[in-house]
Amino acid sequence: MGRRRAVEAAAIRFDVVDRPEAISAVTARVTELGGRIRALATVREMDGDPPLTEIELEVEGVTQDALSSGLESLSDVRSIHRTRALDQVFGKRVIVVGGGAQVAQVALGAVSEADRHNLRGERISVDTIALVGELEIAAAVRAVADLPRARLLVLAGSIMGGDISAAARELQEQGIPIICLNMVGSITDVADLVVSDPVQAGTMAVMAISDTANFDLARQRGRRY
Amino acid sequence: MGRRRAVEAAAIRFDVVDRPEAISAVTARVTELGGRIRALATVREMDGDPPLTEIELEVEGVTQDALSSGLESLSDVRSIHRTRALDQVFGKRVIVVGGGAQVAQVALGAVSEADRHNLRGERISVDTIALVGELEIAAAVRAVADLPRARLLVLAGSIMGGDISAAARELQEQGIPIICLNMVGSITDVADLVVSDPVQAGTMAVMAISDTANFDLARQRGRRY
Repeated sequence: MGRRRAVEAAAIRFDVVDRPEAISAVTARVTELGGRIRALATVREMDGDPPLTEIELEVEGVTQDALSSGLESLSDVRSIHRTRALDQVFGKRVIVVGGGAQVAQVALGAVSEADRHNLRGERISVDTIALVGELEIAAAVRAVADLPRARLLVLAGSIMGGDISAAARELQEQGIPIICLNMVGSITDVADLVVSDPVQAGTMAVMAISDTANFDLARQRGRRY
Repeated sequence: MGRRRAVEAAAIRFDVVDRPEAISAVTARVTELGGRIRALATVREMDGDPPLTEIELEVEGVTQDALSSGLESLSDVRSIHRTRALDQVFGKRVIVVGGGAQVAQVALGAVSEADRHNLRGERISVDTIALVGELEIAAAVRAVADLPRARLLVLAGSIMGGDISAAARELQEQGIPIICLNMVGSITDVADLVVSDPVQAGTMAVMAISDTANFDLARQRGRRY
């Protein structure tokens, strides 16, 4: 299945009194307005009297004006700010997971390449987490499927296999390709592309998800550099 | 206001038929179950017959079992996977925004320091976007307030001021501190801490949000290194 281009969403941030009915009242009101929630995220929770939860909300099918005034009339909603949908600001994401030294080198390549694309109007983020241990890394690989706007995973380390390789296959089935460094373990048989130099791996990762680079990961599948 | 410790959330991922009523049916069912939505994110949208939207959902106040079986009976919901709440996997986030060369060096310091903390059981991610231009960077600074789990911003560049400084003040009012490199422009008067070496700026950023490091940003406020 292909990936559809997202419709532009109206985005707002607001505080809501922290009680179970409050969020339900918000989602019910969005439905009444004829909107479709694309994202609702608890940004932070604040002590106080009453305790408040700050929410970022993105809705398709309504204007920002209609959304703001529709929520303004709810008694539990406070201080509405107009914001921008996160895909317009932070764009597509390359996720880098693995050992700190190598994650940092992949990030160096990926950030430098993202800079060149973002200068020309694209929006590509490079997001990382340094982790050690088969279970911890496998959990992170699986969770990449749950990250909004994640488009590609780079696995950066010296030895990965076992449950990490199983998690990698699951992620690929969700439509997210994987580049890994050349390393010990079965991950190099699973990844779509194996690259020895971490800076080049980061560069290729960004090229692979960019709209403008002349680089097709599907044509590189199974190759090693 | 302080920040409350988040309650653990039940997390699932599922496909839902892409029509406006489908998401509303999901949020209404969560309410019936007595749950409180902490996060609902459209992870990806897929062409097909019918077109499907993949949703990641985190709910407080219900078990994962109750959530799964509660949604299973909705006719528009398909293929429910059990997942883990993203704060347990990717944890707190340091966000780095600015020019590619400097963002990469800040990331080098921050990823290396996050590695040391994550080895001891913490979860700290380092997320970056390379951007140029006052308006683009100011928009990203404002949008950091909308990013779930964002705890600190590092501004990495050679010249920043004007609307970037205004956006920085707004972000600080939302409770998110800012470290910036020593650079040209008014941002160095606004940031909580100014650090000349980008690798050290990244290291200090992670120390500032870590649970274990003996580093209190409040005691460094306004200083330059």
